[in-house]
Amino acid sequence: SERCKKLLVEFNNKVKKVGTDDPRRVYHSFKVGLALTLVSLLYYNKPLYGGFGSSTMWAVLTVVVVFEFSVGATLSKGINRGLATFAAGSLGLGVHFLVSLTGDIGEPVLLCFSVFLLAAASTFTRFFPGVKARYDYGMVIFILTFSLVAVSAYKTDEILTIAGERLITILIGCVTCAVISIFLFPVWAGKDLHKLMFLNIEQLAVFLDGFGGEYFGPEDNKENENAITVKKSFLDGYKKILTSKNEEEALTNFARWEPPHGSFQFNYPWKHYLAIGKVTRQCAYRVEELHNCITSKINAQSEFVKLIQASCMELSKESGTTLQELSAAVKQMTYPKGVPNHIKNLKRTASNLKTVLKTVTLKNANVLEDVMSGAMVASLLVDIVGCIEDIAE
Amino acid sequence: SERCKKLLVEFNNKVKKVGTDDPRRVYHSFKVGLALTLVSLLYYNKPLYGGFGSSTMWAVLTVVVVFEFSVGATLSKGINRGLATFAAGSLGLGVHFLVSLTGDIGEPVLLCFSVFLLAAASTFTRFFPGVKARYDYGMVIFILTFSLVAVSAYKTDEILTIAGERLITILIGCVTCAVISIFLFPVWAGKDLHKLMFLNIEQLAVFLDGFGGEYFGPEDNKENENAITVKKSFLDGYKKILTSKNEEEALTNFARWEPPHGSFQFNYPWKHYLAIGKVTRQCAYRVEELHNCITSKINAQSEFVKLIQASCMELSKESGTTLQELSAAVKQMTYPKGVPNHIKNLKRTASNLKTVLKTVTLKNANVLEDVMSGAMVASLLVDIVGCIEDIAE
Repeated sequence: SERCKKLLVEFNNKVKKVGTDDPRRVYHSFKVGLALTLVSLLYYNKPLYGGFGSSTMWAVLTVVVVFEFSVGATLSKGINRGLATFAAGSLGLGVHFLVSLTGDIGEPVLLCFSVFLLAAASTFTRFFPGVKARYDYGMVIFILTFSLVAVSAYKTDEILTIAGERLITILIGCVTCAVISIFLFPVWAGKDLHKLMFLNIEQLAVFLDGFGGEYFGPEDNKENENAITVKKSFLDGYKKILTSKNEEEALTNFARWEPPHGSFQFNYPWKHYLAIGKVTRQCAYRVEELHNCITSKINAQSEFVKLIQASCMELSKESGTTLQELSAAVKQMTYPKGVPNHIKNLKRTASNLKTVLKTVTLKNANVLEDVMSGAMVASLLVDIVGCIEDIAE
Repeated sequence: SERCKKLLVEFNNKVKKVGTDDPRRVYHSFKVGLALTLVSLLYYNKPLYGGFGSSTMWAVLTVVVVFEFSVGATLSKGINRGLATFAAGSLGLGVHFLVSLTGDIGEPVLLCFSVFLLAAASTFTRFFPGVKARYDYGMVIFILTFSLVAVSAYKTDEILTIAGERLITILIGCVTCAVISIFLFPVWAGKDLHKLMFLNIEQLAVFLDGFGGEYFGPEDNKENENAITVKKSFLDGYKKILTSKNEEEALTNFARWEPPHGSFQFNYPWKHYLAIGKVTRQCAYRVEELHNCITSKINAQSEFVKLIQASCMELSKESGTTLQELSAAVKQMTYPKGVPNHIKNLKRTASNLKTVLKTVTLKNANVLEDVMSGAMVASLLVDIVGCIEDIAE
């Protein structure tokens, strides 16, 4: 009982964590429940829907499989499902009609053969990168529907009625999902993508802003364990940018399916986000390099370090500010007015640093290069990000 | 017609490319076709299977949805599907029995409510990271089956027979998929993961091997466009390592579901591959940094460069050789005998380079630091990879 209690408490904490990390998850769960319940009513309410009988099953199936977390994902799956069902159903009926002309003996053989051929061909199509990215689910449903129609066609002659009923229930399922996901606490993939973008840039800004102090500052004397942990977390925030590529691509893909919402108009250039994501990631690789320098800082008190300290700290600070401003610009989707000025500053500071480097003798190479190259690259990247910003807005 | 022809040729080329990139895709397509055809026979062969009637549909559905490219993915989905169907079916029947005690009026309300509750709870569970990674599909099927049983239970009294038939057909579908995917040109996720690992290490090796010559060598004089393109491709080979994390995780996940095969025994430590993947990626970030140096090489003829050139080239070459050997060791799953020696060499060369750096005056900082830090990190990583190798074998 003691152990049971402990497990329960643990489970409870886990549930709370998953829920508070993103409260939309809770809403989503209820939305799925609601959609399923509504569709189940098809079964009970004969007068209202005209009684689809066992075809209701397809509506339930559709809702369970199609309802995804974001609006874009739901619509993408719903549209894929609807179109694929229609196309495969028509094709299946056509094949069935043609085959039925050949007489009883040839029929099953030909039908099986057509299923084999179509399944193999469609499965192969799924390996095409373009199809895989957008229509993968549609192809699965295409194979499924075709096989079902071709196979069941052999038995029932009322196939047309059944096919029609199924198509309608599937459409009802899709529409239910679409309506609920759009109008009830919608989760827009586009919005998430937008948020991911400016948060990522902000993470870089936070790192660069704090980097100078961390690198050139005094040693940590274990005096304040708490403060160190906080510091650690702000220094590690950028890490997930390194591997966020797949997430960005998935969100972009979904965002394309979404109707206009909020400040995202029709034909919003989602592609630009991928471009921004790419340069952000390039920048994150440099930051990763800088982060490595922190852990291996040596000779922090050498003369050379003192010489470059001022410029480096300014550069790092200024990079941070610029990125922060860019992040805000992306957030509010405005043109980043202050950025060109900042970039000018950055370039000046960087060239100052370079002249300092040229006149100095080498005592400790470790420090100088990393900081400079990193900061320089950052300033360079700020340029690029700035340019892309202009295009995006 | 001209245009049509052109499109056809283009399509043809695309098909060829997808097919030749990985011929297993063609086999996979035929395997899916075969599995579907076999399952369709359930419909036609009444004497053989005892005639499942419309329940055959479930076998078709299962095959289409469960059959994935690799054995691990297929088994994972199949087992998830089988277990979830059984669990949800039992639960559904139980709920139905309990609810039927309440009488006619309360029944639909209670059933709908139970569907709502279970769907919401299960959907929420899907957000748990552990569940999402391994049992996501199982949860979907759980919701689906429960809803179907709860809803259809209201109508038919022969529910037990139907449920049994469906379970059996689904199991037939799962077994068909499993048998075909395991015994007919199997595609092992574990093998793919293993291959990805040593190929990734090899890419790093190829880059480091060529880096010295590229960086310190003479300028490209456009004399040989072809050679440059070839060079470019070998220098860019490592790029995809930067974002291969998701692929590695997915493959590891699938590999866990696979039965022992080839040289991969039961309980093979797949986790170690994730660890190797992580250090490989760390190394790739450094290589990315080195790659940036190539594009911005300046003052290649300065005195300073001449001073460090020899050590750097040796370091880069030696790193390449060591990684090549490690890659071979991972490939053959043997202990990398020569590596400790190589690492000793690397360390010696690195410390040589450091002493050179200490005695020299600074003319061009750009070159030195990147190369050295990169090569040093590489040597460090070789250590780590070496250690992990020991564990894995």
